[in-house]
Amino acid sequence: MSTKVKKIGVLTSGGDAPGMNAAIRAVVRTCAFHNIECAGIYRGYQGMIEGDFKEMGARSVNNIINKGGTILKSARSMEFMTPEGRKKAHENLVKNGIDGLVVIGGNGSFSGALLFNQEFNFPVIGIPGTIDNDIYGTSHTLGYDTALNTVVEVIDKIRDTASSHNRLFFIEVMGRDAGHIALNAGIGAGAEEILIPEEDMGLDRLLDSLRKSKASGKSSSIVVIAEGDKIGKNAFELKDYVEENMPEYDVRVSILGHMQRGGSPSCFDRVLASRLGVKAVESLLDGKSNYMAGLLKDEIVLTPLEQAVKGKSQVDKELIRVSDIVSI
Amino acid sequence: MSTKVKKIGVLTSGGDAPGMNAAIRAVVRTCAFHNIECAGIYRGYQGMIEGDFKEMGARSVNNIINKGGTILKSARSMEFMTPEGRKKAHENLVKNGIDGLVVIGGNGSFSGALLFNQEFNFPVIGIPGTIDNDIYGTSHTLGYDTALNTVVEVIDKIRDTASSHNRLFFIEVMGRDAGHIALNAGIGAGAEEILIPEEDMGLDRLLDSLRKSKASGKSSSIVVIAEGDKIGKNAFELKDYVEENMPEYDVRVSILGHMQRGGSPSCFDRVLASRLGVKAVESLLDGKSNYMAGLLKDEIVLTPLEQAVKGKSQVDKELIRVSDIVSI
Amino acid sequence: MSTKVKKIGVLTSGGDAPGMNAAIRAVVRTCAFHNIECAGIYRGYQGMIEGDFKEMGARSVNNIINKGGTILKSARSMEFMTPEGRKKAHENLVKNGIDGLVVIGGNGSFSGALLFNQEFNFPVIGIPGTIDNDIYGTSHTLGYDTALNTVVEVIDKIRDTASSHNRLFFIEVMGRDAGHIALNAGIGAGAEEILIPEEDMGLDRLLDSLRKSKASGKSSSIVVIAEGDKIGKNAFELKDYVEENMPEYDVRVSILGHMQRGGSPSCFDRVLASRLGVKAVESLLDGKSNYMAGLLKDEIVLTPLEQAVKGKSQVDKELIRVSDIVSI
Amino acid sequence: MSTKVKKIGVLTSGGDAPGMNAAIRAVVRTCAFHNIECAGIYRGYQGMIEGDFKEMGARSVNNIINKGGTILKSARSMEFMTPEGRKKAHENLVKNGIDGLVVIGGNGSFSGALLFNQEFNFPVIGIPGTIDNDIYGTSHTLGYDTALNTVVEVIDKIRDTASSHNRLFFIEVMGRDAGHIALNAGIGAGAEEILIPEEDMGLDRLLDSLRKSKASGKSSSIVVIAEGDKIGKNAFELKDYVEENMPEYDVRVSILGHMQRGGSPSCFDRVLASRLGVKAVESLLDGKSNYMAGLLKDEIVLTPLEQAVKGKSQVDKELIRVSDIVSI
Repeated sequence: MSTKVKKIGVLTSGGDAPGMNAAIRAVVRTCAFHNIECAGIYRGYQGMIEGDFKEMGARSVNNIINKGGTILKSARSMEFMTPEGRKKAHENLVKNGIDGLVVIGGNGSFSGALLFNQEFNFPVIGIPGTIDNDIYGTSHTLGYDTALNTVVEVIDKIRDTASSHNRLFFIEVMGRDAGHIALNAGIGAGAEEILIPEEDMGLDRLLDSLRKSKASGKSSSIVVIAEGDKIGKNAFELKDYVEENMPEYDVRVSILGHMQRGGSPSCFDRVLASRLGVKAVESLLDGKSNYMAGLLKDEIVLTPLEQAVKGKSQVDKELIRVSDIVSI
Repeated sequence: MSTKVKKIGVLTSGGDAPGMNAAIRAVVRTCAFHNIECAGIYRGYQGMIEGDFKEMGARSVNNIINKGGTILKSARSMEFMTPEGRKKAHENLVKNGIDGLVVIGGNGSFSGALLFNQEFNFPVIGIPGTIDNDIYGTSHTLGYDTALNTVVEVIDKIRDTASSHNRLFFIEVMGRDAGHIALNAGIGAGAEEILIPEEDMGLDRLLDSLRKSKASGKSSSIVVIAEGDKIGKNAFELKDYVEENMPEYDVRVSILGHMQRGGSPSCFDRVLASRLGVKAVESLLDGKSNYMAGLLKDEIVLTPLEQAVKGKSQVDKELIRVSDIVSI
Repeated sequence: MSTKVKKIGVLTSGGDAPGMNAAIRAVVRTCAFHNIECAGIYRGYQGMIEGDFKEMGARSVNNIINKGGTILKSARSMEFMTPEGRKKAHENLVKNGIDGLVVIGGNGSFSGALLFNQEFNFPVIGIPGTIDNDIYGTSHTLGYDTALNTVVEVIDKIRDTASSHNRLFFIEVMGRDAGHIALNAGIGAGAEEILIPEEDMGLDRLLDSLRKSKASGKSSSIVVIAEGDKIGKNAFELKDYVEENMPEYDVRVSILGHMQRGGSPSCFDRVLASRLGVKAVESLLDGKSNYMAGLLKDEIVLTPLEQAVKGKSQVDKELIRVSDIVSI
Repeated sequence: MSTKVKKIGVLTSGGDAPGMNAAIRAVVRTCAFHNIECAGIYRGYQGMIEGDFKEMGARSVNNIINKGGTILKSARSMEFMTPEGRKKAHENLVKNGIDGLVVIGGNGSFSGALLFNQEFNFPVIGIPGTIDNDIYGTSHTLGYDTALNTVVEVIDKIRDTASSHNRLFFIEVMGRDAGHIALNAGIGAGAEEILIPEEDMGLDRLLDSLRKSKASGKSSSIVVIAEGDKIGKNAFELKDYVEENMPEYDVRVSILGHMQRGGSPSCFDRVLASRLGVKAVESLLDGKSNYMAGLLKDEIVLTPLEQAVKGKSQVDKELIRVSDIVSI
């Protein structure tokens, strides 16, 4: 790439996550800092197809660093999956003088970005934004740390009532096919047991564990379940199973749901978003393309977008051992 | 009652609520202040039957004013519904020198207290503790204000993601047969529509209201539903109904559940608990019995327990009108 | 007033308070509901003088009910204290077709409104907005409940470290000449002692109380001081005095400051703001003027603005007794 | 060390920090898991000298993972700085059968541990607990992440009122000689300028930066100052200096103080505490001594205690550049 990028477009795509606004702010201001233009693209790829753009200067992102959600809105676009859709999108970018793209989103969004780059050789850098932390090439995705705190605060409240009544709670948390939220928030909330997709605990071991908990003198218990858990039963079926086999327990179920996606981002997510936003823009200015900016071993690094999409983020198995120990 | 009360027993019963610990603290310390003894009774009436008592001094309630749940635990007791159970309970009180009782709980707990008083002429004062605010004789029950803040904070988070995606959310809140939580938290959270048991809105008016919302340019909508709502459908059935009739909406459901019962009490609930605890003990010292201490028109007053049990707390219908106006 | 109000101006003035945005939203939407126009006036009376107005429709106040501060900004205006300033302000209102005014603020703002009304016979209704709760004619001002929760949450954090180190903390809270925040948040935070302007405790009684606290086995202590306290020493001087007289104490001081003014409003403040906003607009529509809408004994009522300005809001002295008992 | 450790003592020392209780819980439960005994030592080294010990089993640390402060209390001990004090402390450990020590604290606490180990060849492992993040050998100390969130939440509230009034705020945060809290919370809070000990900005550059902020259209500004900042003026002197040189600014000062030390730990701190507690105990069981368990590049590792004490933790200078860019 011989000519320098002159105007960057930024969009958020897929499920929203706390920290997306902080990342948009960083992208917009890094453009202002380096004296290039910036355009916000609304509703992800769909807005790119519809030409839903807005010029953004440093002042247009005032007071958003602490806001959940995304001021650019997000959407899933079926049309972008078609060659015609992507052609329209490209025409809109060209028409608006946009010659570089920052895509804030998850795996699906990155796949779209890859395809777009292949077809039009359009410079693109990804920023991982999803509470699920399921992206290869970064130890933390934007929104993940905030979601952990949200989950832990809610379970703290549930434990108040659980321990007042000596109850057993099954609490289902988000994470899609990944157990990151369940495992970390489970440890953080002091869960007695944690069920994640990466490890099939089996129903027998669960009953066994609950019996040990009871025998050890625990009066109430919290079991955290990842939504993608592989034990073969959802939270309500688990409740029935346990009540059948351990009638001494009064079991309740709580599905935490979409509240996990919202809220003011944690300091960690705001700082990470700021660093990734700076990196993304400066990478485009350096003539780089097809990378994702991420955090690895406390440093901001680039990973080829293709690896990010194909790779699999792993949960730290050592944490399962830690959980087994501290929940004794 | 000619002889002054010398030792007061305090218990929490029914569903737990934030502020119960603050009330226990106030009861214990008011006893200490007036130089009489105090015993905590664990697990409500069941602990009374089993003699699960503990002497409590001013220092034994340090650092609990800000804790959710109840350090005395709560339980529902089938045995207390039998004459034999109540006889055992009375014998335990007498054996422990307890000659006055403070019952922190809801309607069911007060019914038990009334029965107990009738059978044994035992002095008893009630303190209304439930998040549902469904008790006659007090404008606010302990835990209600805290639950409202919890609900509003959670819906704020959900709105972040709702407005990022232009979605419609049905959010079910607690309240048993009363719409207090739904109506007040609904207004506080800026809900577009609120469904409560006290008012059958009807499915047609709901659709109509959602259509008006959409037409008025609202990009996302929150509907708050009281768990005891009379519209005849639960949140999931409503979702299906709306999606069928308004396919342009992407509807999500969130059942907030037990988190509403926990959490550190609000300042309002802590102050109210302190005032009610002082009033309850001093009423017993004044020779009063069979009353509930409550808050009416900003003043702490006594209501005969029988009225509290039989009366019905009403939602403020004017609030329905306010909600209709501010959600335009 | 024979002709009906057709366009209402709304402004925030004086110190900002959580709930002001919720009140602005309610004013704007009540206008929309009754099909009259509404204009936001920026920076209080100063913006009125400068003609800094903006037309506001129902959608222009989306997603502000949960925001602290005021989107209309606030300012103190020296110019409005002059007849020339007020004349300019009036001309601007007339020029913009505004024929009714809602002033959200405190005592100073209401005095200005009164003067303005006397000079130009301009219809005006006040909404009490200040965290200090020092306004006659309402049991709660907007922002007061939120500030109480903010203070209590912060003192909860300070208590964590105070009790880990067996320390004594003097914590100064806002409230100007009124002890409402100190007294209620002090009880809510479990303060050992509370110093308010309405009651001169005297230094001897303070030392005495701290000695009793120590003797009773308390390992740490929190003293809450209203900023306008009359004991004649500020928090740092008190620290010196106590350390001199009770060298066994390691005393720390914390001035909570402006954080008390910010933050997302509590559910109570949001509902109150909604009710007051509706009442203010409908009062103007009813041809009323020179009143403040307030909450008294749980009902929304009007108080003549002159009384609101001249009257004095009282702290509930019974709370001082409650505090003495529960802090034993 | 040929014989395996049979009983571990655990203490917290120095300033308390959120996550210390989670670490105590992990130490106690890891002992239970490996079937060895554990004793809690109260008030740090002072309690060791006074023999203030308590046997702790898995159930004695229930429901503390979410509590701020330290249930073992903390204190600074002058006596432990004397050979006689340390001798007494050693005798108490021996008398109680304690043959391994976990010290949770900061640099001063680790120096004491080193000395103790040298004199008595007593096995000791450190866990870094301080909000200041100023310890070599770990990217994060316990409590640091929580403190960042506390600071950012408070500044969010202050910004509400700052932007309502177009004010400039100087906000002083903790951190002793290190700028970690100021730099990260400053970026997280969207501060316009950050003053840290590691970088002498100079008064001229500060004025220059504020003038640029004003010129760029910012209506309010937040400057975050580390308590150990080297600019040579404290926050109040800075206020005077700026007001003299930029009379257009209405400057306010807020010293956040001890609230930064308290509060329920973040999920990050709870998980880190759990991992470090497990590592500390298992290191003692492995015959290791004189190490600190820390987090480096996302992994739990041991650093020789001597290095931890002598080394200097560095702020990430790249973050200063990021702050300059995103605050444009």
